[in-house]
Amino acid sequence: MTLAPLTPALLAALRPELSEGCERDISDAYLSEPRDLWRGVAGAILAPRDVEEVARIVRFAARERVGIVPWSGGTGLVGGQTLTEGPAPIVLSLERMSKVPAVYPRENVLVAEAGAILADVHTAAAESDRLFPLSLASEGSARIGGLLATNAGGVNVLRYGNARDLCFGIEAVLPDGSIMRGLKRLRKDNTGYDLRNLLIGAEGTLGVITAAALRLFPQPVETGTAILTVAGPSAALDLLEMAERRGGVSAFELISGQGLRFLTETGLLSRLPFDEIPEWCVLVEIGAEAGGMVGERLETLFTEGYEAGLVTDGVVAQNAAQRAELWSIRETIPEANRRVGAIVSSDISLPLSAIPDFLESCDAKLATADLRINAFGHLGDGNLHYNLFPPPGRSREEFAGQRAALRHIIDEEVAAYDGSFSAEHGIGRLKVTQLQRYGDPAKLAAMRAIKKALDPVGIMNPGAVLGPEVRRNSPNFETGASLTADAD
Amino acid sequence: MTLAPLTPALLAALRPELSEGCERDISDAYLSEPRDLWRGVAGAILAPRDVEEVARIVRFAARERVGIVPWSGGTGLVGGQTLTEGPAPIVLSLERMSKVPAVYPRENVLVAEAGAILADVHTAAAESDRLFPLSLASEGSARIGGLLATNAGGVNVLRYGNARDLCFGIEAVLPDGSIMRGLKRLRKDNTGYDLRNLLIGAEGTLGVITAAALRLFPQPVETGTAILTVAGPSAALDLLEMAERRGGVSAFELISGQGLRFLTETGLLSRLPFDEIPEWCVLVEIGAEAGGMVGERLETLFTEGYEAGLVTDGVVAQNAAQRAELWSIRETIPEANRRVGAIVSSDISLPLSAIPDFLESCDAKLATADLRINAFGHLGDGNLHYNLFPPPGRSREEFAGQRAALRHIIDEEVAAYDGSFSAEHGIGRLKVTQLQRYGDPAKLAAMRAIKKALDPVGIMNPGAVLGPEVRRNSPNFETGASLTADAD
Repeated sequence: MTLAPLTPALLAALRPELSEGCERDISDAYLSEPRDLWRGVAGAILAPRDVEEVARIVRFAARERVGIVPWSGGTGLVGGQTLTEGPAPIVLSLERMSKVPAVYPRENVLVAEAGAILADVHTAAAESDRLFPLSLASEGSARIGGLLATNAGGVNVLRYGNARDLCFGIEAVLPDGSIMRGLKRLRKDNTGYDLRNLLIGAEGTLGVITAAALRLFPQPVETGTAILTVAGPSAALDLLEMAERRGGVSAFELISGQGLRFLTETGLLSRLPFDEIPEWCVLVEIGAEAGGMVGERLETLFTEGYEAGLVTDGVVAQNAAQRAELWSIRETIPEANRRVGAIVSSDISLPLSAIPDFLESCDAKLATADLRINAFGHLGDGNLHYNLFPPPGRSREEFAGQRAALRHIIDEEVAAYDGSFSAEHGIGRLKVTQLQRYGDPAKLAAMRAIKKALDPVGIMNPGAVLGPEVRRNSPNFETGASLTADAD
Repeated sequence: MTLAPLTPALLAALRPELSEGCERDISDAYLSEPRDLWRGVAGAILAPRDVEEVARIVRFAARERVGIVPWSGGTGLVGGQTLTEGPAPIVLSLERMSKVPAVYPRENVLVAEAGAILADVHTAAAESDRLFPLSLASEGSARIGGLLATNAGGVNVLRYGNARDLCFGIEAVLPDGSIMRGLKRLRKDNTGYDLRNLLIGAEGTLGVITAAALRLFPQPVETGTAILTVAGPSAALDLLEMAERRGGVSAFELISGQGLRFLTETGLLSRLPFDEIPEWCVLVEIGAEAGGMVGERLETLFTEGYEAGLVTDGVVAQNAAQRAELWSIRETIPEANRRVGAIVSSDISLPLSAIPDFLESCDAKLATADLRINAFGHLGDGNLHYNLFPPPGRSREEFAGQRAALRHIIDEEVAAYDGSFSAEHGIGRLKVTQLQRYGDPAKLAAMRAIKKALDPVGIMNPGAVLGPEVRRNSPNFETGASLTADAD
């Protein structure tokens, strides 16, 4: 099916249906994306005020065969929010639907419009002495609709789950402009197909999420953090098991010696709490509701891990300042990576027990390439960033010609170990080819059938997830692939 | 579309594709259901040996337009496993696919074929010192495929979630006979639409789940149980909040004075641990991994609840025998209900904070009807069984003529409070009319579009969930409605 551009004449026809202020200037803010890899096209930027207005716009677009690109916080890293060419679409910004209309502390539920900024949702939850645990680097600008559409992950997945697990119900406008009113605040509801989870993670290709009932938790009263030096990834997994038996583990992050050396090499962090830089360590965080004695539990974990030969050294934070210091080690690594300049980055997940073998095998396959490898990330979730860097004194540009081949080696190893090439960032437009290559054929066929059934004209976020793969019209595209997903 | 019956000639044509022993005798075991409300029809009972054989059968059925009724443990309470009339379908039993081919203790993952019995999965997990927490009355016969197809709930949902939350990946045969190989053991995987959750809860209408990667947990080391007398449902909710702040709550069950009086009235339990029978109490269970001091925590909960005016009395189990005694109070209530004889039963869920108002309002609407009301259940999940009984000395049969009107009052009240008329048992064929009445129209339209896209001929579990509603050809049907969902 061919889409039509949103011409000035069509926009004029739509205008009487729009609220005052709905039409925004077509500005860079809506057409750029975080790494300046692509530039989007748009016939209009529309910021509707409520779900009924979203529905009117979608009905109009369906009738006129105009594409719609939902625009939330614009922080996605795989181009899901950026249509780079083709008939000019409507960019549909949720920014004016940013309220948190209701908090139900007794139910541990909060209702947010899709344009609510994550940090504001945190604040609203905290004002009721509750925690909304979804947390990631872009929380000051990421909005709930996009976070759900991409099933965002972040730093608290191990304990609280990803965005999908934190949502009881959604309201959404489907591609025919009908409104699915599913803002249920129910923990159990077996009444028909799970359209909530179908829309969550569909990256705006099956409809526009307009509001959500989100899951809150009691605020953890005590939090304890430690960095423990481990013998290797396998020992780290044994330590994870030991920690989980005690409960309350909220973060378990793997850090490599290479990552630590990048911190000192770039001068970003000069003082590290180690006598000598270890090859592997983990950052462990434990949260407890009350009387959790997190400090004692971390000391016990250290001692038992040491006695079991898993842990060789470690530091347990004694106060909030030390906690922040330990976290800064983990959180500064992406910036150090950027300064060193990755040749290839990745956002992979693996079955937990396959991680040590994967690392050994993939390292071996890349051994002849004279690279530095920084493998780090959310070990507790099986989610690693396996990133390749040039050796000292050489630049990433020198490796530009090998980039595709290096990425292919990683992709194939991930597939061989039953892993995923996109753990938390989604498909967007960047990974359409990888999905076609590594996705299950029966699943892909079913996805296409569902897309066609719900969106026969193909107006919703054209080209995202299922393709057709957009041409990469940015001059930066070739370098772009290398930047995928090193932001965490 | 009209389906064709599985005639002897068609079966003969299929036979060369079947493994030895695949064809079973057409016996009562496959055509009856737990409450003898309906009797199924079948042209053949087939028990394939592996996923490829399932796929061959489904491809044949799709080609010949023959219906398929997946048969798992046969324990469902809403008729999802029983097609009562129409062209004779293939009943597809998963009983010969009952293996647990792999346990990954380090990953907390277990892979089970769809025919694995829940109790056997518990055993396999326990042999690796792990817990598979899905637990319900029928676990000795319910099988994984059916438990996932219906998104089963049970007694551990508050802490561990329902079946959906306990599944990382599924393998399934789609209605065209293609095999979706999705046995992922990944905690994060954002690669396309969430077909796993679409098939989970679809009650066999979108495909046959043939295997699953299930989520395990460390075994709780300590468990503590108490029954606390509370001032009312509102106080019970405040106490729930107090308990959840301390973490580890694995059960929070509401018990009404009416339920307790049924226990003594029927003679099922003569000794209850109360000086006088309270109007409301809750059974609280706390599980902890190690060093959890569950006894102390329950004592503290009692004391603080008492000081806050929420709790008036209580008993904390001091040993395993006392724990069992407290649980027997909760677990004997369904049997007491059966002996008293319910006029109308229900399996509803509500937003937690709406429960006190719902109970007051619904009780008031029924006040003139001279009934006894027993409202009880998984308060922590917002999941109640709100059941109506005749007054002493009268029988349920005397109320048969009022049954539909009484049910309608409950349904309308549930809808008014944004609740669900089917919290954990699903739609099956029993609740198709309720789904049409109370389901969101946009959601229902999308469900029909998805069904048509994936199963254009309509072979998969014809009539379930979306209808057309099967005629109720059982002489017991009129009484049947009253029995819905009082099994928990």
